Amino acid sequence: MIAKAKTLAELFHDTLKDIYFAEKKILTVLPKMEKAAHASDLKKAFAKHKTETEGQVARLEKVFAAIDKKPQGKTCDAIVGITDEGAEIMKEYKGSPALDAGLLAAAQAVEHYEISRYGTLRTWASELGLNDAVSLLQQTLDEEKKTDATLTEIAERVVNQEAEAA
Amino acid sequence: MIAKAKTLAELFHDTLKDIYFAEKKILTVLPKMEKAAHASDLKKAFAKHKTETEGQVARLEKVFAAIDKKPQGKTCDAIVGITDEGAEIMKEYKGSPALDAGLLAAAQAVEHYEISRYGTLRTWASELGLNDAVSLLQQTLDEEKKTDATLTEIAERVVNQEAEAA
Repeated sequence: MIAKAKTLAELFHDTLKDIYFAEKKILTVLPKMEKAAHASDLKKAFAKHKTETEGQVARLEKVFAAIDKKPQGKTCDAIVGITDEGAEIMKEYKGSPALDAGLLAAAQAVEHYEISRYGTLRTWASELGLNDAVSLLQQTLDEEKKTDATLTEIAERVVNQEAEAA
Repeated sequence: MIAKAKTLAELFHDTLKDIYFAEKKILTVLPKMEKAAHASDLKKAFAKHKTETEGQVARLEKVFAAIDKKPQGKTCDAIVGITDEGAEIMKEYKGSPALDAGLLAAAQAVEHYEISRYGTLRTWASELGLNDAVSLLQQTLDEEKKTDATLTEIAERVVNQEAEAA
């Protein structure tokens, strides 16, 4: 029983390192997206999400503490791929009225990656009886879903404004 | 007006190529995940999703036709990263009771990437007045959300079964 329980615990720990790396990567990317964005509400959304992400990193550090581990990242190929696509959009669509739409798409791909990871981690934490971790992960999951919904609203408005201004 | 409209149209076309590549990549990965999975309902879910993905590829080809373009993929770094992580899980957790939990996490990361892309494409198609494309993209978006919900159900069951069998 201990060996099997340990294996899910290892998977939990590995995935925690994955999302910790991802959040730190996102912290480096958000200021670039904020700078690149045209629409002021999009700039504001990226700035706000940076502050939120700092809080999410702090929560992850508490989850590491809950399993008696040091906070540590492990290269997450997925977030590297997703943010590379965002960087490509910023380069290819620089000066284009479609840039904001592209930035929003990139940001929503990031949010959905996080939503899937936090949902998974919360399910595993619950199974492992890590009640404090469940609560921390649920808080971040709720924030990520709210951010995604805000981005959807902005996306609908931004794309409309571009069409109207054209 | 034409120049601006064209730019969003280009972004739509670029993103269509991205998800077309992603779906084709997923088609090559699903049989490996089906083979690796332990739980029979997870094997069935992967097999069913492969059939669905074939239908989604066919729908994308209709969307290409709706904008008078040939179906064409463009390397999608995000899906490469996400599926690389899945491959790593299959390797590292081979023979472990946590393998299915890891496969489910990888599959849900894929689903969420697709949900974000189809949501974005549908919003843009609507703005571009591509009504047939809106309907095709919405159908796939609904399927992906349903698949994600099914995977969540299986995840909760699989993780519980593993704990009980331990």
